[in-house]
Amino acid sequence: MNKGLLIVLSGPSGVGKGTVCSVLRKKMPDLVYSVSATTRSPRQGEIDGVNYFFKTREQFQEMMACDALLEHAEYVGNCYGTPRDFVERTLAGGQDVILEIEVQGALKVKEKFPEGVFIFLVPPSLDELKQRITGRGTETQDTINHRMTVAEEEMNLLSHYDYAVVNDEIEAACHRIESIITAEHCKASKYLAELGELPAAIEKA
Amino acid sequence: MNKGLLIVLSGPSGVGKGTVCSVLRKKMPDLVYSVSATTRSPRQGEIDGVNYFFKTREQFQEMMACDALLEHAEYVGNCYGTPRDFVERTLAGGQDVILEIEVQGALKVKEKFPEGVFIFLVPPSLDELKQRITGRGTETQDTINHRMTVAEEEMNLLSHYDYAVVNDEIEAACHRIESIITAEHCKASKYLAELGELPAAIEKA
Repeated sequence: MNKGLLIVLSGPSGVGKGTVCSVLRKKMPDLVYSVSATTRSPRQGEIDGVNYFFKTREQFQEMMACDALLEHAEYVGNCYGTPRDFVERTLAGGQDVILEIEVQGALKVKEKFPEGVFIFLVPPSLDELKQRITGRGTETQDTINHRMTVAEEEMNLLSHYDYAVVNDEIEAACHRIESIITAEHCKASKYLAELGELPAAIEKA
Repeated sequence: MNKGLLIVLSGPSGVGKGTVCSVLRKKMPDLVYSVSATTRSPRQGEIDGVNYFFKTREQFQEMMACDALLEHAEYVGNCYGTPRDFVERTLAGGQDVILEIEVQGALKVKEKFPEGVFIFLVPPSLDELKQRITGRGTETQDTINHRMTVAEEEMNLLSHYDYAVVNDEIEAACHRIESIITAEHCKASKYLAELGELPAAIEKA
């Protein structure tokens, strides 16, 4: 059984990770979405177990203590984490998994899964990013300013990623990510690993 | 002006490089095809300057002497080479170039263009490859046997390539190559190189 690919979709807060990820999942129904755990409050329309596993801080700390999280990070006062077991079982079963997480969490996943595919969603410009953060209409001015500072710092972490996908238009961004996943499945190293020893495979042919 | 990508499409003799390349060019009209020089005789339907620049051995040796070839290799008694000037000018002008060349030539290009995208077209199996070589109907039995031995040796060079694309079905193989080209344009290193210094780009935003 060939192991699935771990696709990590990240990028600065407000760049549109959630929207891109949800459109991508509709276009690629075989891609398994890793639902994160978080201590932040649900936004309107968000469903527990679908968008996030919403946890109290006590519950979250218990998961940390059991080493049940692949990564966890605090971001603007809330905790986010990736349940480890689900990701590992899905990859072992040969299915690709997509994680949509904050920049800090993605870099922690990279420490444990350097073979993952790390995609950084980039805003067309920082002005555009500010408009998106403001336009969400769910944050105070102080929060917006803080988020912009964090977003600018996060942009500087792009060099740790494999790919930079500009989110100029959602369909175009999704097409680029689909192409990246297809290309990663064609990596020569992956092909050789799946064949095992090439001479043996040739003998079988 | 962003530099174009050099896409090198190679693989064992008889795998279908020519067919895949010609379908790909119809699907991606912006991809500039690098026409190789060769001393081999034209096959039926091949046009000088379109499929190859057909050269005498003397003309070919003159190009080698002038350093006018990016790579050159002898293969089953014939010389093949890539005119250097055309490739370099096209890349500098921001267009992607595709080279469809034999395995030996591709590895020589890699020495000069390690930043190129090296794609190895793989047969579904060696039996399938033998059928394709035999089915072409233009070669003697000795030539077929020699080509099979060469093809098996060539398969062992796959590990020097970035991608392995199985040519099970032409449209599927072309879709994979299109995806690889799209993905390579999204490489974080390419994005950062094009931005120059990221902080400066942020200030401009």
